[in-house]
Amino acid sequence: MKKIAILGSTGSIGVTSCDVIRVNKDYFQVVLLTANTNYELLAKQANEFRPAYLYISSKELSQKLTTQLQYAPKIFYGDTGLLDAVCECGANILLNALVGSMGLLPTLKAIELSMDIALANKETLVLGGDIVTSLAKSKGVKILPVDSEHNAIFQCLQGNQQRPLKRIILTASGGPFLRTPLKELASVTPEQALKHPTWGMGKKISIDSATMVNKGLEIIEAKWLFDIPSTMIDVLIHPQSIVHGMVEFADGSLLSMLGPTSMSIPIAHALFYPNSEYNSLGQTLDMSKGLNLEFISPDEERFPLLAIAKHVAQELGTKPAVFNAVNEVAVKSFIDGKIRFTDIHSVVEKVLSLHTNSKKYDLKTLLEVDSWARNKAEELLRGTK
Amino acid sequence: MKKIAILGSTGSIGVTSCDVIRVNKDYFQVVLLTANTNYELLAKQANEFRPAYLYISSKELSQKLTTQLQYAPKIFYGDTGLLDAVCECGANILLNALVGSMGLLPTLKAIELSMDIALANKETLVLGGDIVTSLAKSKGVKILPVDSEHNAIFQCLQGNQQRPLKRIILTASGGPFLRTPLKELASVTPEQALKHPTWGMGKKISIDSATMVNKGLEIIEAKWLFDIPSTMIDVLIHPQSIVHGMVEFADGSLLSMLGPTSMSIPIAHALFYPNSEYNSLGQTLDMSKGLNLEFISPDEERFPLLAIAKHVAQELGTKPAVFNAVNEVAVKSFIDGKIRFTDIHSVVEKVLSLHTNSKKYDLKTLLEVDSWARNKAEELLRGTK
Repeated sequence: MKKIAILGSTGSIGVTSCDVIRVNKDYFQVVLLTANTNYELLAKQANEFRPAYLYISSKELSQKLTTQLQYAPKIFYGDTGLLDAVCECGANILLNALVGSMGLLPTLKAIELSMDIALANKETLVLGGDIVTSLAKSKGVKILPVDSEHNAIFQCLQGNQQRPLKRIILTASGGPFLRTPLKELASVTPEQALKHPTWGMGKKISIDSATMVNKGLEIIEAKWLFDIPSTMIDVLIHPQSIVHGMVEFADGSLLSMLGPTSMSIPIAHALFYPNSEYNSLGQTLDMSKGLNLEFISPDEERFPLLAIAKHVAQELGTKPAVFNAVNEVAVKSFIDGKIRFTDIHSVVEKVLSLHTNSKKYDLKTLLEVDSWARNKAEELLRGTK
Repeated sequence: MKKIAILGSTGSIGVTSCDVIRVNKDYFQVVLLTANTNYELLAKQANEFRPAYLYISSKELSQKLTTQLQYAPKIFYGDTGLLDAVCECGANILLNALVGSMGLLPTLKAIELSMDIALANKETLVLGGDIVTSLAKSKGVKILPVDSEHNAIFQCLQGNQQRPLKRIILTASGGPFLRTPLKELASVTPEQALKHPTWGMGKKISIDSATMVNKGLEIIEAKWLFDIPSTMIDVLIHPQSIVHGMVEFADGSLLSMLGPTSMSIPIAHALFYPNSEYNSLGQTLDMSKGLNLEFISPDEERFPLLAIAKHVAQELGTKPAVFNAVNEVAVKSFIDGKIRFTDIHSVVEKVLSLHTNSKKYDLKTLLEVDSWARNKAEELLRGTK
């Protein structure tokens, strides 16, 4: 039985992971569950899976959590609590389903402790790809992609690791504004942007899908996961979200992975890898009425942040940290109704232009850059509206 | 350098194989080329690749062939000449691109001589699947699929051999009559039937594509190649012929192989396997303008021979030999303008109903059944028009 820690267990990926673990009972022992603020769901999950360790963001929430528990786990909270919990939990595998750049440090800590990583937090590699992949290599630790796109590519590459590669293709739904007239984009509301056409997801990732920042971050993530230059990673819009990823080999063969728009399949694939005998909750793609699959090249006028992300993915260094941090701040402002949808790319572009890229960096530099970029973004945004 | 024998080198697959071998010069030494009647092309190929052995069907043709050769290979001809040529040529790998049931015996002979088989002749496995796969196993010989559909499935299964399988999906173009009104099918001409919408192929296989017999034969071929029950093999019509095959795993993941409608990719993949450093003639799928892929469940009223083939694939025994033999005779009659398109399925159905299936059989029985079925079909066809 493997010991598993789930960071972000009350989010969309976390909840589905719990569903997967529930139906594969004898395989995992849950040792740590964590939440930001949703103590009620965390308590419910804890009462079911009985992990010895829990984490929630504040002392106050930890007290509320305690009142709803039917047993007495050790509860961590506060700024350093999450890393302490990871250190103490003794997991063999850690599922990182945190949102945003806060995912980096726990991943690094877990790798240091030789835990395999099932990675749903793309910022881990966007910010610290170099540091994380080097450490994982030296520790002999696997980084298993949970993102549906990267898991799809990972599946296509199985058994083909030696085969000369031409490129990787990440598919994108195109989000809710794929066909919105360009001039209307400035006035779209957060409610419109949050209506993702094919996937039910968290707020941050839904906005990132509408701007295609999400795909930009995935290019950087794929670069590190599969150890290839970002110029070998292309994006195709595929509004049906049925083909999750493709790999084109030098001989002209393309392998692609298709499946229902259900996260339980990539989650199960990553958690159980290399074992393939598991219950992924039995979802299948309904092909009985046929299928109609479209693939469209993305229009960079509509998705300027994708073009910026591609440039950032080529430059690397500390630029991805800036790109990501500014986007996080801007997306939050947009969701809060403080800026327009089209302001997101303006502020990202502006802060990037103010940043001097540094190709050699350590963790401390990264965190400083992250913090600088957030401050700069907030400063600019205060002047936006 | 591997020694290769190409049976059927002047046909569509044979010519493309020569193209592939030409651009990968240091990998193969051609030791045998064979043709049925096209001595001029065979001479041209021989003068280029200089195999020590050639075969052509008759003594007369062998004399014509000799006059066009710029060197002096040993030339076999006549009924037993093909098997003698296979015996003597000393190949490491034999590409069987013969058309029809005449492909079976040379495959068996080559396996006995421990040659790997690159298989484009589907009748080899349709007729003798049981015998051929058992012999290949005992001889430790690889059977590598050249058919684009089976090669696609083979690619999808690489690295996934241990993964629980739900089903295999063979894609079909649907042929030229996919949308022809049903009542017009009785009066379609051979010229119309030979116009394949996506692939340029030989006559026999073009008609088999129009009736979907081709897909029926491929179900039986896949059953033996991948060692799975035929009930786990489904067919989907995909008019664009871009997705060549799919594999659905128990967890709901589907892997599919896409590529341009070019046989050089599966041919190169099979010939070089497991080596992946080769020139496949550089063809790529153009996705720059996007793609639109349709998948439709086949209508068995339109394609009655597909329904019959599925039944035959479940029954096995000597039934596939009958199905194949009668179809060969009927297709020839249709091409010669002697019967209607819809008579093909009537005669196949009729002869199958007269046959007593035998689940245990040897090669001799198979050849007797094949011969009985042809005679019976010809007898019935004489009464048709």
